Amino acid sequence: MGIVVQKYGGSSVSDAASIKRVAQRIVATKKAGHDVVVVVSAMGDTTDELLDLAHEVSPLPPGRELDMLLTAGERISMALLAMAIGNLGQQAQSFTGSQAGVITDSSHGRAKIIDVTPGRISKAIEEGAVAIVAGFQGVSHESKDITTLGRGGSDTTAVALAAALEAEVCEIYTDVDGIFTADPRIVPTARRIPVISYEETLEMAANGAKILHLRCVEYARRNNMPIHVRSSFSSKEGTWVVSADRINDLLNQGDGESPVMEQAIISGVAHDRSEAKITVVGVPDKVGEAARIFETLADAQINLDMIVQNVSAAATGLTDISFTLPRAEGQTAMTTLARLKDEVGYTQLQYDDGVGKVSLVGAGMRTNPGISAKFFKAIADAGVNIEMISTSEIRISVVVNEQQIDDAVTAAHHAFDLDSDEVEAVIYGGTGR
Amino acid sequence: MGIVVQKYGGSSVSDAASIKRVAQRIVATKKAGHDVVVVVSAMGDTTDELLDLAHEVSPLPPGRELDMLLTAGERISMALLAMAIGNLGQQAQSFTGSQAGVITDSSHGRAKIIDVTPGRISKAIEEGAVAIVAGFQGVSHESKDITTLGRGGSDTTAVALAAALEAEVCEIYTDVDGIFTADPRIVPTARRIPVISYEETLEMAANGAKILHLRCVEYARRNNMPIHVRSSFSSKEGTWVVSADRINDLLNQGDGESPVMEQAIISGVAHDRSEAKITVVGVPDKVGEAARIFETLADAQINLDMIVQNVSAAATGLTDISFTLPRAEGQTAMTTLARLKDEVGYTQLQYDDGVGKVSLVGAGMRTNPGISAKFFKAIADAGVNIEMISTSEIRISVVVNEQQIDDAVTAAHHAFDLDSDEVEAVIYGGTGR
Repeated sequence: MGIVVQKYGGSSVSDAASIKRVAQRIVATKKAGHDVVVVVSAMGDTTDELLDLAHEVSPLPPGRELDMLLTAGERISMALLAMAIGNLGQQAQSFTGSQAGVITDSSHGRAKIIDVTPGRISKAIEEGAVAIVAGFQGVSHESKDITTLGRGGSDTTAVALAAALEAEVCEIYTDVDGIFTADPRIVPTARRIPVISYEETLEMAANGAKILHLRCVEYARRNNMPIHVRSSFSSKEGTWVVSADRINDLLNQGDGESPVMEQAIISGVAHDRSEAKITVVGVPDKVGEAARIFETLADAQINLDMIVQNVSAAATGLTDISFTLPRAEGQTAMTTLARLKDEVGYTQLQYDDGVGKVSLVGAGMRTNPGISAKFFKAIADAGVNIEMISTSEIRISVVVNEQQIDDAVTAAHHAFDLDSDEVEAVIYGGTGR
Repeated sequence: MGIVVQKYGGSSVSDAASIKRVAQRIVATKKAGHDVVVVVSAMGDTTDELLDLAHEVSPLPPGRELDMLLTAGERISMALLAMAIGNLGQQAQSFTGSQAGVITDSSHGRAKIIDVTPGRISKAIEEGAVAIVAGFQGVSHESKDITTLGRGGSDTTAVALAAALEAEVCEIYTDVDGIFTADPRIVPTARRIPVISYEETLEMAANGAKILHLRCVEYARRNNMPIHVRSSFSSKEGTWVVSADRINDLLNQGDGESPVMEQAIISGVAHDRSEAKITVVGVPDKVGEAARIFETLADAQINLDMIVQNVSAAATGLTDISFTLPRAEGQTAMTTLARLKDEVGYTQLQYDDGVGKVSLVGAGMRTNPGISAKFFKAIADAGVNIEMISTSEIRISVVVNEQQIDDAVTAAHHAFDLDSDEVEAVIYGGTGR
């Protein structure tokens, strides 16, 4: 048997008792004959506590020092986990991101992995030890300074190590049993998705499903590394995230019942409460005016999501441009646009952070024209007004009033027969880094 | 002006407020024109808290992982200190022991420094930054694993870096104003010692004065690195620890009053409550019997301090051997000796942990025969019985009943005119690592 990389988030190692429990699971995997490499986040709220301390001594801490500070969190959890494993009679060694060969660029707080050279990890597992690696951190190629990878960093560390070590699978442990057809807190009858492609997972993640981060899925997709998302609180199978061409193989394994035939075209319904909508009213409908607006926003490092431009009213020659963006960037965007008023000559700016996005994700949507119509009708029948629409090859998203997100998700989930006969999802705790 | 190395213990950086205060002192030193390298311990009780966590997950944590865990403590304090300095407009960069080039052997928990290669520190100070270095930690030459130096490790880091960087001085900041002629908690009129030699400091430290650790003073002595022990809570001059031949130079500086003439031959009175006394009663007075006892104790890694063998009673041919040792090793020593009973044929073992040691330290004691007599008389006049005596070139120590340590210290301090006219010492807080 080959190498298994397991990643445990902060909620799985929040105290001594949970660290011991995780240690038992790791030792069981090792005893089953696998070589095991574990990637671990900081314990529970450690990162937030360290951030609080930083802001007590400095309102704007330098990125280099903030990274040095935050990486203490994984150092603590990984050493404790190695001790707990050792106490079960299994040799274990912990390694910092730097020691594990996670080489990054120099962007403190949001570093990108540029190489993984896990020589010490390979040596440790060859010697029969379990290797415990600090998630979320690396060392910069140029300055040899400690870096952190930003949100979702530990997941990315796990996938990157799994790829570099040519592991069989990267297991991401979390506090739910996998990826579900909708958020079980909204739709109690949501169904666990047994297998899903990287592409659909990316659409789910980009549109509000919080289970995996975009970066991690993108890294796995580029390296064709299977991810198994599962709960650290149970031993159930979770959700396998693999390449589209492997889905049939996986679903046809075992019982010979060709479950691929039952595979619905729709993967699930995602939702997102983190966006705001800005409308620029009365933009002169001339070549270059819209471009001028979007260039300026891009220069200010603002990431836009959906963009809609209405057909101009012929009488006025004016048009309205609406777009959504992360709420955290709303203030900057409004300030940036306000400075453009004279140059572009728009009438007014409208800001709305009472919106939400609901997305239907699934393969082959474009080739099934009935899907969009059914989605819009289900939402309309639920009494929800659609404010904006955008589509991709495998996704349809609508912007609705934030108060009506749950109604829209439930209606869409039901319309596409995604409901399970029983309540499958158990949510075990908080979420880690 | 040259490089100043400053070391701050855990009590000096116990919270955000004290970190900011220390940052101001560092920036003031930098603004005065010095290049500044700072060595810092973990915040307050961090190390003890991490040790507690370790023992929650494993009764006997492996040394490699314990070192990985504990070094998180300095990582936190040094990053916060660098941020606080940055917030005052002065560039600062923090470095782990490994990054600072503190190369050690592989003895986890009690590693010895074998080389210091501070290339990154030199670069940082050349670029005008203050370099903050994690105390207490290094990286092993062979395995590249993280190591810790054990008790007093941060002081040793500071002196080792100062020596490698050819600094002007290594300032050790603590919670008292320097080294005093006696513990001010026992003798309120104790006087700050302005200058003292490495050798006398070593005797003070080895005999219970807690202000500096033996290893750090030994390192400074071998490298002739001046140490300035002073308070992080005031700006007063503290105690300079230098080579014997520099003492006159230093005392003759400045006011032209030749204060060397006033320099008493006696440096101070140290005391130690950490020892126990073992007496082996009725040892046959034959060549080799005592040696057999001490060999066996040495094999068991027990460090003896004072040893006294009484003259044998001619009638019996038996003698008594007494020695002192750290109380923590008392149980092991008694067990080891019990196994020797048949082989050596002694009568019985006596264990006494109600003892204490009082030591008079000063230059030229052997050449001033009146000193010992005066010391013993002062103690006797205070009604204190002397149980054991040992002497060196610059020290006389006696073992007394633990209850009478304070009386003995006070009497000796007074007899040698060490009392100050006023209360000089202020004790500001706890003690760091």
